Amino acid sequence: MESPIGIFDSGIGGLTVVKAVRKVLPKEDIIYLGDTARLPYGTKSIDAIIQFSLEDTQFLVDRGAKYVVIACYSSASVALDMIRKEFSIPVIGVIRPGVRRAMQVAKTGKIGVIGTSLTVYSGAYEKAFKEEGTQAEIVGKACPLFVPLVEEGWLDHEVTRLVAREYLEPLKKDNIDTLLLGCTHYPLLLGTIRTVMGDINYVDASAEVGSELAKNLRELDMENNRGAGSTAIYLTDLSMNYKEIGERFLGEPMKNFSRVSLKGRAK
Amino acid sequence: MESPIGIFDSGIGGLTVVKAVRKVLPKEDIIYLGDTARLPYGTKSIDAIIQFSLEDTQFLVDRGAKYVVIACYSSASVALDMIRKEFSIPVIGVIRPGVRRAMQVAKTGKIGVIGTSLTVYSGAYEKAFKEEGTQAEIVGKACPLFVPLVEEGWLDHEVTRLVAREYLEPLKKDNIDTLLLGCTHYPLLLGTIRTVMGDINYVDASAEVGSELAKNLRELDMENNRGAGSTAIYLTDLSMNYKEIGERFLGEPMKNFSRVSLKGRAK
Repeated sequence: MESPIGIFDSGIGGLTVVKAVRKVLPKEDIIYLGDTARLPYGTKSIDAIIQFSLEDTQFLVDRGAKYVVIACYSSASVALDMIRKEFSIPVIGVIRPGVRRAMQVAKTGKIGVIGTSLTVYSGAYEKAFKEEGTQAEIVGKACPLFVPLVEEGWLDHEVTRLVAREYLEPLKKDNIDTLLLGCTHYPLLLGTIRTVMGDINYVDASAEVGSELAKNLRELDMENNRGAGSTAIYLTDLSMNYKEIGERFLGEPMKNFSRVSLKGRAK
Repeated sequence: MESPIGIFDSGIGGLTVVKAVRKVLPKEDIIYLGDTARLPYGTKSIDAIIQFSLEDTQFLVDRGAKYVVIACYSSASVALDMIRKEFSIPVIGVIRPGVRRAMQVAKTGKIGVIGTSLTVYSGAYEKAFKEEGTQAEIVGKACPLFVPLVEEGWLDHEVTRLVAREYLEPLKKDNIDTLLLGCTHYPLLLGTIRTVMGDINYVDASAEVGSELAKNLRELDMENNRGAGSTAIYLTDLSMNYKEIGERFLGEPMKNFSRVSLKGRAK
């Protein structure tokens, strides 16, 4: 099936998912939408995030997407069910693949999850772990300053270490043996997080989405074996440093990107 | 003139301006618009901020505003001229009143200005100081982590002190004698800023807008001497903690607020 895979995020952090998908599915064409005009989603209301996510999905579907990947953790936490209800194509979020991976690697009974306040307080991870039948205890912790610190470029900085210590100390005391990084930006802080949490298992859900998507496409017979492996990037706003930060996430030069406006969508 | 004064901001930080206006103009009715669905503006492109600001102004004008105050520093930095061009009612931004005040209190030849990256790099402050005929040297410094730190509630915190030291050290070395706080959130960090910068002059432009507006209304014979001094607050999204943070800025309980959608506006 030669139609593209659609991937959306509130911003450009979701380009880590593009990178992971390109790695396992090099022949698939990808269209990526970053809603940079309204980012971040994690501080908005659940109603707003659902509405924005439906508009994002509509954009990708209008451009022929055969499959939609929600690369935004806040959106995957609260809007996945509604998107599945409103659209007939298959949709996958970043929550579930990370949960499955964490359950595979966790050895003791405690798994930590970090994310934006909205992701953590939505209870989406607890629900997903429960539905996957885990016996582990899930300990969530919101880390709202991690995203601005990454965007400031302070990946290895005294301030970031101090913030990480303050946020993660409770998880350390809880003796978790696996930490799920529930936000697109957090993998860039892995070095700093490791200095606080030490030698435990780390799960970057963005990286897990690729293999789960590959499996699904195979099962549904929706693979593209003749594609050129192109990536088209659409952003709702081209802000000052989008290219520099975007390439940090994508891991390669950003080309073929355009600014677009989204159509409103009746509620 | 009994029509209301319209005030807008990207979020709820602009409620400090509402507080200042209510203090000097207790009989005026105020309508406030916070574009919480799209905040922050400071990380968006200049094009996007101008477009959002025109839509915000249109909303206030449609509700009968006789005068518009731009309480958002990013918006006042890049959109003031375009708003004045597109609308016939008088418009004031937060930049100019702060500049005039800083020039009154500065004793030596160096004035510091802090704000979001967009506000500082736009050059709006340099332009305003120049047009006001200052002889002082203006030293700008972007402090992008200050807003997330205020929203995290870390007003008096080791991390905030460390961040302030890193951002402000160059201004301290420059021996500025006056510091202009060019962002709605920064006055809440004044205690921490003072521990780094010591006993110099601080100018909170939000507080200066009230007296400038009062003077303008008198000169234009647009005062409302019979008003009830009501405040109506409109937000484009009602996010989780808007009320708690809003009341921190407003300095009194928030009542009479509603969620609204903005109409798009042809470019």
